[in-house]
Amino acid sequence: MTTGTRGAHPTRQARRRAATYDEIVRAARTLLAEGQPLTLRGVAAEMGASPAGLYRYVAHLDELRDLVAAAIDQALAADVRNSVADFIDPDAAGRWLTGWTALRRAALARPDEFRMLLARPRSQGAPIRELSDTCLGQLLHAMWQQHDFALPPVPPSVGTELAITADWPEAFDWLHARVCASLHGVIALEVTGYVEPAFVESGVLYRTTMLDWLARLGQVADLDRLLPVLDAELVR
Amino acid sequence: MTTGTRGAHPTRQARRRAATYDEIVRAARTLLAEGQPLTLRGVAAEMGASPAGLYRYVAHLDELRDLVAAAIDQALAADVRNSVADFIDPDAAGRWLTGWTALRRAALARPDEFRMLLARPRSQGAPIRELSDTCLGQLLHAMWQQHDFALPPVPPSVGTELAITADWPEAFDWLHARVCASLHGVIALEVTGYVEPAFVESGVLYRTTMLDWLARLGQVADLDRLLPVLDAELVR
Repeated sequence: MTTGTRGAHPTRQARRRAATYDEIVRAARTLLAEGQPLTLRGVAAEMGASPAGLYRYVAHLDELRDLVAAAIDQALAADVRNSVADFIDPDAAGRWLTGWTALRRAALARPDEFRMLLARPRSQGAPIRELSDTCLGQLLHAMWQQHDFALPPVPPSVGTELAITADWPEAFDWLHARVCASLHGVIALEVTGYVEPAFVESGVLYRTTMLDWLARLGQVADLDRLLPVLDAELVR
Repeated sequence: MTTGTRGAHPTRQARRRAATYDEIVRAARTLLAEGQPLTLRGVAAEMGASPAGLYRYVAHLDELRDLVAAAIDQALAADVRNSVADFIDPDAAGRWLTGWTALRRAALARPDEFRMLLARPRSQGAPIRELSDTCLGQLLHAMWQQHDFALPPVPPSVGTELAITADWPEAFDWLHARVCASLHGVIALEVTGYVEPAFVESGVLYRTTMLDWLARLGQVADLDRLLPVLDAELVR
């Protein structure tokens, strides 16, 4: 950066800088999609740039990982939001299961990206899963408001880790943490290859886990209506 | 290998070869423990050997990964067996939860190894999780034999993926697959860093998930006895 350009065209310079970051993220995601390790040198080569030029934007590997994980998180959240927007039924339970199943589909389509999200959830101290969590948390919250199911007791050891507000009580945040651990856990094992390929193909472990949660979230009487929605999403 | 030694001392040579494989695995696990990427070049350097010398034992990176993942699987299974052997109470439910909690402890102590196990479960086509699964599956089987709890219905889409025998029926293998997906899923998210550090520290997500399973496996009346066992294992 020369003193001549500094401050002269801040907006244009900021735009150019943002465009370069987008390009860095694109190059990094190309490497991941090709199953290559994520390195500063690899990203520079993919961009046709010199490593020295890249260092002006990303100082070290952890910074690159944070940048890429945050971009993946936002892309997954967009996938979830798009799928839910396609679901015009006003029932919040259907929207919630549609959102989760869209996340599973995106995770299986881009396993290396999802694996990276599981490995690097905190961008500079802040959890970068915020978007996808906020997104899925809002869907569960709408379902709770609409169906008024019972919230589980909160164990004393949960402490003050929950993000609570007046209409987002501790017991609700704990329920969401439990739902996330359960469904993300199954999806994570499907993505890493730990689950039998035939079970991933049929989605039977994910489906059974989702059915358990629908029952616990007071949807037993509605299963006749919700199961076809779930099964349609699973084969999309 | 020269023709002079081939077949002359097969046992001694086989022993030497096995010792070299042990050394390769040791070097690879050192790299993982140091957070370094697993490469043939890195393993050779760690052993003070030439890459060319290493190629005589491990032809490519996938073979190295298979070798290391199988060794990690066996080490984890040994950890589980040792913990259960320390638990002298004849109650199979206590032994089962002790085994799982020992696996969680080992996974959190060596996160990079557990991550590798999640990523590479199949050694040359065969699932290498066999040992830890067999081990944990046997503990659940003993619990079922002793307590005779109800087995869940098997969804039709499960198909023929289950390993069933006369005393190991389809419904039991499906239950074990579900228990594994649920508990391994939570442990996986704890290990990758996806779960809040405070929840990993207190073990509250794992503990709540384990309590759910104890209830589903007919242990509600025994929780007063089992909870102290679980809590003692969690702080070991």
